[in-house]
Amino acid sequence: MAKPMTMSQKILAYHAGKEYVEPGDLIFANVDLVLGNDVTTPVAIKEFEKIGIDRVFDKDKIAIVPDHFTPNKDIKSAQQCKMVREFTKKYEITNYFEVGEMGIEHALLPEKGLVVPGDLVIGADSHTCTYGALGSFSTGIGSTDMACAMATGKCWFKVPEAIKFVLYGKKTGWTSGKDIILHIIGMIGVDGALYKSMEYTGEGLKSLSMDDRFTIANMAIEAGAKNGIFEVDEKTIEYVKQHSTKPYKIFKADEDAEYSQVFEIDISKIRPTVAFPHLPENTKTIDEITEKIYIDQVVIGSCTNGRIEDLRIAAKILKGRKVKKGLRCIIFPATQNIYKQALKEGLIEIFIDAGCVVSTPTCGPCLGGHMGILADGEKALATTNRNFVGRMGHPNSEVYLSSPAIAAASAVLGYIGSPEELGMKGDEEQ
Amino acid sequence: MAKPMTMSQKILAYHAGKEYVEPGDLIFANVDLVLGNDVTTPVAIKEFEKIGIDRVFDKDKIAIVPDHFTPNKDIKSAQQCKMVREFTKKYEITNYFEVGEMGIEHALLPEKGLVVPGDLVIGADSHTCTYGALGSFSTGIGSTDMACAMATGKCWFKVPEAIKFVLYGKKTGWTSGKDIILHIIGMIGVDGALYKSMEYTGEGLKSLSMDDRFTIANMAIEAGAKNGIFEVDEKTIEYVKQHSTKPYKIFKADEDAEYSQVFEIDISKIRPTVAFPHLPENTKTIDEITEKIYIDQVVIGSCTNGRIEDLRIAAKILKGRKVKKGLRCIIFPATQNIYKQALKEGLIEIFIDAGCVVSTPTCGPCLGGHMGILADGEKALATTNRNFVGRMGHPNSEVYLSSPAIAAASAVLGYIGSPEELGMKGDEEQ
Repeated sequence: MAKPMTMSQKILAYHAGKEYVEPGDLIFANVDLVLGNDVTTPVAIKEFEKIGIDRVFDKDKIAIVPDHFTPNKDIKSAQQCKMVREFTKKYEITNYFEVGEMGIEHALLPEKGLVVPGDLVIGADSHTCTYGALGSFSTGIGSTDMACAMATGKCWFKVPEAIKFVLYGKKTGWTSGKDIILHIIGMIGVDGALYKSMEYTGEGLKSLSMDDRFTIANMAIEAGAKNGIFEVDEKTIEYVKQHSTKPYKIFKADEDAEYSQVFEIDISKIRPTVAFPHLPENTKTIDEITEKIYIDQVVIGSCTNGRIEDLRIAAKILKGRKVKKGLRCIIFPATQNIYKQALKEGLIEIFIDAGCVVSTPTCGPCLGGHMGILADGEKALATTNRNFVGRMGHPNSEVYLSSPAIAAASAVLGYIGSPEELGMKGDEEQ
Repeated sequence: MAKPMTMSQKILAYHAGKEYVEPGDLIFANVDLVLGNDVTTPVAIKEFEKIGIDRVFDKDKIAIVPDHFTPNKDIKSAQQCKMVREFTKKYEITNYFEVGEMGIEHALLPEKGLVVPGDLVIGADSHTCTYGALGSFSTGIGSTDMACAMATGKCWFKVPEAIKFVLYGKKTGWTSGKDIILHIIGMIGVDGALYKSMEYTGEGLKSLSMDDRFTIANMAIEAGAKNGIFEVDEKTIEYVKQHSTKPYKIFKADEDAEYSQVFEIDISKIRPTVAFPHLPENTKTIDEITEKIYIDQVVIGSCTNGRIEDLRIAAKILKGRKVKKGLRCIIFPATQNIYKQALKEGLIEIFIDAGCVVSTPTCGPCLGGHMGILADGEKALATTNRNFVGRMGHPNSEVYLSSPAIAAASAVLGYIGSPEELGMKGDEEQ
């Protein structure tokens, strides 16, 4: 009789052509997609050239997205992008997205239908784990692995143990996917899932939109996980049908699959949550923040929270209000499509009226790149994913992490607070 | 009997409290506005602090606009902006425009009604000459002069000789203000008006919109001029009434005023003009360009050509068309108001549909700042004002200058060309 497996085990076994893989096994598996950006691809290209072949394994299964330092910040980043552009031309890479056609890689790939359930995806960017929201196994790798995978279509993996998160209940008030993942990281710590798979299941999933799930899967790496993965349900299928024509395959965990830990989480109890400097695990609920933390900048965007729902909630709060005098509020729609959708819905106009900056899609200040770098002693509240020392600029600056709702309300208040302080009640049950 | 004077002489004499000033005179005059940006103000602050006083001459007559490296490109620019922000707070500078409220300084100040006819304006930025479009004397100064002026409200000037440009006829086809000033610079050279005033008059002015005039005045410095200045007419007064409540004063040149040169220019004969690398004087009309010059990037924006008319003409050409595959087209509305107006008119949607990047207002790549820096060997066509070696990035990159019409058409064509190549006839007479 076949031994039971988790979602991640099954996807890895399938792609390695095996009946069964065990946590700890080192395997070699075929990948469905190899991703790189403008920071990691140049390094991968140099390694690729050392291999000495003049073809890629499959020009349709490589995606390259120059999103980190684009439109180019400086000569160095321009040179990097030029190298990437020439490589994609030479090898006729189908899924190269030029500035103007693109967006932040982890928002763009699902939107373009490049990832579907059951896929095995690797990307030379740590937040590649985002696509777990679609029931795929996706994980960040280094540039050398990217190079080998571009040449061979294969990558090595150590099969991870898994932690099971059984979600139940429904989101209430202003709570979003971001609050759920910050709550979880606060609970298990930034190494709480080290090299493990975070597998999400339970009737609570029904309450989570696809955008919530992308946010939750996106931050798996912030708990040290190899990947985060959601059980596929009707919402997943609906999303995939809307975005992709690729065939997909649903891998469901066996009921008796083994997990190193199981957490049952009532999401109706999760309150809006903020991660304090300098780790995503330093969480407090909005109710636990008693002092007024004045901020200099609010950033709404990134691969974590720059999707249309994120912009809608921010606009709902910013509509008819003004950003606090002296505070910069910078909004990054994650892709050109999201930008355009926000435009059609009147969200961009709301942002401009409120005194926000609306940027073209880019990773921007999230990684201290450009478009909103902090000075000495400045504090930012961001919907991004990391608040390490100096992440957004000067080593003496501080980054707090939150949902778009808390970020937008705080932009108006001038200090970290909730929309409730603006007299806006969240729905009792969403 | 009073000696005759040019417009510039009259404004300078008035502000120096004199009946008459002669070209070559060194005078000390009261200024109506002192301008600085995020690059020049920090230097001025350091000089200001050396003076050892604890007040500015007039908190309402200083305008500070952080537009060059904002939203902040890096830690250094964030530190500069922080210094500026703290200075403006300390001295309660009325016209400090934070990121989100602002735009490119030379588009912003007229829009905010801070400059009116007859004003004497100095700014620590070479394109301060832009406001001459309003019949003011405005010129770029250094940061030390900015510091002294912030303390005293005064600045020294050497009264310039003047060149008179008598314009007649009407614009035809795709010709705009940008083509007129490129034509003039091509004719007289980049030192053709060295330390002189370029004074525009004649019935041809009627054919020029205020946006045309801002563009023409803006590039006076590219002919080496101290300032460019337009005779005030009904269009000027209409603009000023729409934007400002400040009292204004019209200074008209005496009929027998002396000019070092007089040019009579039939603007109906001016064809769309492109400045080739690496000087604005290296002009060719679009008809004279026989080879196909393929370009990597198009930039539409800047203090020269980022106003609403510029965006309208670009949108007219880009509507329903696509930016050439592989080319980046980056559009910079010059102010938040212009951005919002473009939004309302559907221009932003046209740009996104065409595959352009739409940035928040910033000087961006014009001066090699950020948001579109060129790599080795790359060519850009830009509606900006300077195409010096390395201006937009790598020393081996090249910048061509043109109007928004030529830039938009070229973004679609992939090489430098006219809307006529897309089958779009300009109006015979505008």
